[in-house]
Amino acid sequence: MAKKEITIYDIAKQLNISPTTVSRGLNDHPAINIKTKTKIMDLAKELDYRSNKFASNLRKQSTNTIGVIVPKLDSMFMSSVISGIEKIANNAGYNLIISQSFESEEKEKNNAVTMFNSRVDGLIVSLSNQTKDFNHFKTFIKKGVPLILFDRIAEDLPSTKVIIDNFKAGYTATKHLIEQGCKNILHITSDLNRNVYKDRFEGYKKALLDHEISYKPELFITNDLSESAIIDCFKNDVLKRKTLPDGIFITSDFAAALAITTLKQAGIRVPEDIAIIGFNNDLICKVTEPTISTINYPGKEMGESVARILVNHLKGNGDLGITNTVVLNTDLVIRKSSLKKNKNKT
Amino acid sequence: MAKKEITIYDIAKQLNISPTTVSRGLNDHPAINIKTKTKIMDLAKELDYRSNKFASNLRKQSTNTIGVIVPKLDSMFMSSVISGIEKIANNAGYNLIISQSFESEEKEKNNAVTMFNSRVDGLIVSLSNQTKDFNHFKTFIKKGVPLILFDRIAEDLPSTKVIIDNFKAGYTATKHLIEQGCKNILHITSDLNRNVYKDRFEGYKKALLDHEISYKPELFITNDLSESAIIDCFKNDVLKRKTLPDGIFITSDFAAALAITTLKQAGIRVPEDIAIIGFNNDLICKVTEPTISTINYPGKEMGESVARILVNHLKGNGDLGITNTVVLNTDLVIRKSSLKKNKNKT
Repeated sequence: MAKKEITIYDIAKQLNISPTTVSRGLNDHPAINIKTKTKIMDLAKELDYRSNKFASNLRKQSTNTIGVIVPKLDSMFMSSVISGIEKIANNAGYNLIISQSFESEEKEKNNAVTMFNSRVDGLIVSLSNQTKDFNHFKTFIKKGVPLILFDRIAEDLPSTKVIIDNFKAGYTATKHLIEQGCKNILHITSDLNRNVYKDRFEGYKKALLDHEISYKPELFITNDLSESAIIDCFKNDVLKRKTLPDGIFITSDFAAALAITTLKQAGIRVPEDIAIIGFNNDLICKVTEPTISTINYPGKEMGESVARILVNHLKGNGDLGITNTVVLNTDLVIRKSSLKKNKNKT
Repeated sequence: MAKKEITIYDIAKQLNISPTTVSRGLNDHPAINIKTKTKIMDLAKELDYRSNKFASNLRKQSTNTIGVIVPKLDSMFMSSVISGIEKIANNAGYNLIISQSFESEEKEKNNAVTMFNSRVDGLIVSLSNQTKDFNHFKTFIKKGVPLILFDRIAEDLPSTKVIIDNFKAGYTATKHLIEQGCKNILHITSDLNRNVYKDRFEGYKKALLDHEISYKPELFITNDLSESAIIDCFKNDVLKRKTLPDGIFITSDFAAALAITTLKQAGIRVPEDIAIIGFNNDLICKVTEPTISTINYPGKEMGESVARILVNHLKGNGDLGITNTVVLNTDLVIRKSSLKKNKNKT
């Protein structure tokens, strides 16, 4: 289908000048006079000449592309992160190549090979829940291609990491529920194989311990936090229990919203009977009834931060060592779903 | 920073064989015996040899990349579309280069130039609201690079288009509100410069006409459907009117959710006082109170459809002419926010 590519030789022939002059003219070389430059530029435009980035990249050993591998693109959190990365990378002249691992270690490995062979200048990764072996990233490190992990990381991979303090966030969320009078706090989260969920769980347990509440294994549930998993977990487990929890810390706002809906349908009041806190501060928190208390986790800022660190590094302006860790702030956002006390005041 | 790249010459030298033999071995050429192939492969792996995709692409005039330009990445609809595109493209061996126009014609033009110079094999675009001139895409068409527009399209651009029937969807949504007894239906939407909003508006007007309700300009509002715009529009306009509408057709589910929240805070009942219907069928529709009636617009399927058409075309398997239009189905999803009648039945 593609038409023959226009080269500098075609332009040179038509203008009856040397290819070297054309090349210099296109690159704004001072040795070429303005009149000739204009003629060259005009003809290049007329013929739809494309600068040969590939050949040029081949010489420079740089492709001006950044690879991104994430578990899934279709969540509000991830789309905010990607939007932030794209904004910074694009402004700095980098193309973004994006792929999804769909929580599969094998797919993540395949995506890494593709990125490696595409010679990305840098690689940004949020790990799949299933990934246990990291050899597919070591080739990048050995080759000197900078690797940045964000959100879902692995401690023992020597790369720059951009994260939040998940332990602290889990601790803060749980402590808030305890301060609202909750003593039987259910924690619903995802795969503990990854830092994000493991660290929040540790924070949850530490908050219980510090408030002399013993940890009960039956108050800990893991699933994939999908719509079907959450509804199933409430209808076939939580709602059938003799003793209901009086608080729930659930590490996804959408799952928290579904929990509220399911509990309300069963005649259980939120927050009076069960106080609920979510995670991320998605837009959804503002439009449910009650509105959802949560941990604010700024995805767009994380994306911008990740891209800025990588771009600075690639342009030689970065003072970040390759094994540094950047920890972004999170905040407790108190709305109605968790307020058992002072309810009338809000 | 990058280490020196390993070439077939390095491998040849270490194994004391010819570069041609190495090249053939790496490409599984039948003339090379298995023992030699294994030696070559093993050393290539040990030295982290990368197949020189660039040089190979330069010869093939193909880059195995697909460019995507969209207005914004951070919406549930767009992240579903991108997820669908990535899935199909990745499985077919294509990399995805993604960029955002942020609703700016200038940024869209710059992104198109970058994609053109990156020699994408095909380009997928959803237009920015502001774009009025399309010359930046004509270079792709002239060069034989396939262009597919989706969702936000321009009729007069000769490219394959994947859309929904926005006129019909607007008609269906409005007709549903009329059937629920609404006579003063407010339509809140975005920039009429783009087909999606213009066609829905035309569908709204036609449904009114067909039901002998006259169109009133004061019942038509455009803004960017952002959180601040919607809250401002209700607090400073709609809620101050002497006659409130009895129905609202608003072309975004998140905006519909915000409208419900704002109306409820003002003591107005949804759907009893005002029935509301949104657009897209985002997850949010299921967790608001009342749940939101909407038009189901399957983003992931649209993304997969777009990518499948492009990949088939690139692999020479497509029977689609370049100016075809694919229209995906939409459905009316009736939930509680629009049900003035038979309310007790649902």
